[in-house]
Amino acid sequence: MFQKRFNPRQHKRFDRNDHGNKIYIYGKHALEEALEKAPHTIKKVFLSADAGNSELRSILSKRGITASAMKTHDASQMVGRETAHQGVIAFIDPTSLMVDFRTFLAGLKIDAGTMLILLDELTDPQNVGAIIRSAAAFGAAGVLIPPHHQAPITGAVVKVSAGMVFSVPLVSIGNVNQTVLALKEKGFRAYGLDMAGTRDIREERFESPSLIVIGNEGEGIRQKTLEHCDVALRIPMSPDCESLNASVSAAVVLYQWSKYHLKG
Amino acid sequence: MFQKRFNPRQHKRFDRNDHGNKIYIYGKHALEEALEKAPHTIKKVFLSADAGNSELRSILSKRGITASAMKTHDASQMVGRETAHQGVIAFIDPTSLMVDFRTFLAGLKIDAGTMLILLDELTDPQNVGAIIRSAAAFGAAGVLIPPHHQAPITGAVVKVSAGMVFSVPLVSIGNVNQTVLALKEKGFRAYGLDMAGTRDIREERFESPSLIVIGNEGEGIRQKTLEHCDVALRIPMSPDCESLNASVSAAVVLYQWSKYHLKG
Repeated sequence: MFQKRFNPRQHKRFDRNDHGNKIYIYGKHALEEALEKAPHTIKKVFLSADAGNSELRSILSKRGITASAMKTHDASQMVGRETAHQGVIAFIDPTSLMVDFRTFLAGLKIDAGTMLILLDELTDPQNVGAIIRSAAAFGAAGVLIPPHHQAPITGAVVKVSAGMVFSVPLVSIGNVNQTVLALKEKGFRAYGLDMAGTRDIREERFESPSLIVIGNEGEGIRQKTLEHCDVALRIPMSPDCESLNASVSAAVVLYQWSKYHLKG
Repeated sequence: MFQKRFNPRQHKRFDRNDHGNKIYIYGKHALEEALEKAPHTIKKVFLSADAGNSELRSILSKRGITASAMKTHDASQMVGRETAHQGVIAFIDPTSLMVDFRTFLAGLKIDAGTMLILLDELTDPQNVGAIIRSAAAFGAAGVLIPPHHQAPITGAVVKVSAGMVFSVPLVSIGNVNQTVLALKEKGFRAYGLDMAGTRDIREERFESPSLIVIGNEGEGIRQKTLEHCDVALRIPMSPDCESLNASVSAAVVLYQWSKYHLKG
């Protein structure tokens, strides 16, 4: 699995082909989503010579994007040998995929039906991708992503998100706690998801603009961050089970929110 | 990642060490869950010589289970080189983990608060593990697993389930449609999860014993199976997003069910 290289030393085999701050996406669906929703992020496309990509070639051609021929060796270098890329790889510029928090906030129309998700130190790309997909499905206005101790947007995240990284705004934030405070000042009610939370989520109707903070897979939300939240939300579960998967917890909150804000 | 070897040719490097019909589980948490909930399934335990396993050794000793010393080479052979096994590997007998459908049904006390999940051709171990974990959290009485075209219970599934495979009964079924019919005869209302379903899940209160059928990740539930269901349930979502992850969809249905059946 290919990772965005914040630390190139962790990916020695890519050292000679360092493409800087770019993300490889792979698979037809991911590229189609990118072409439809965020064509400006696409920097280069590689297609294998195999049949079956004619439709994709025609879309690329219409958009004036030239596809280079994919060589097996290059594909392995770009996304790893084990990745099912379906003969389709593109690299995209993450700086054009992510939007800066201030810019995002300045353009955001805030009302009772506005909901944002903040990822607080999630480390599993599977969870990050799945949460972005759920965020798009249930109508989040954006997913806020801090710079540290957090799985960045990689090709794997794009794939797991089913291309939804191109549909829901991904917002690059600085300090998590300061971001929570800034949004509270804008009228958001901040919800921290916590197994020991005092508020049963089944009773919550999310009547204000909502910020939902999802904590780390193992440790949960950080105590300091929870203190900055207005409400500690708990998902009731069977006494036999200690916890839920992070992306499952997030989906349950988003679903509960959507019950009051998304038209069926 | 280690797979249960239905087709040994797919895992050539294990050919010489074929342990038959056993599943390797790894990580302290998974073994602790197995020891607590289903010690009869544990056939052999390997521990690394590293410090930090003294508590585990004491539990094993109390249960009369001898731990063998783990060699790095053997660990790689058992669970693969990339797997974070924390110096703890055990193999368990899947036949003692799974319960036969007839046996299960004979012992099941059925009332309005009984809910079962049926996995219909899910292929991703991540989804299978996450659904089993959610099933335990939200109070399912069992997870029904067909023999064909379905990801089996592997070490990866056990890990993703956070050990919940040992808490919720895993029921081995034959034909999916016949199972649906058999449960309907027992008074179950069969729900098929379908993006084009006619019933908005937000309105469903699950007043009868409930069977929830989750379809394949890519294709969704099979048409024939859907026809056997009483209700086609739809999770409303934003028009921008086509679908949800299978384990997320399952969690949302389970959560909605739990609102009426699980005490907070």
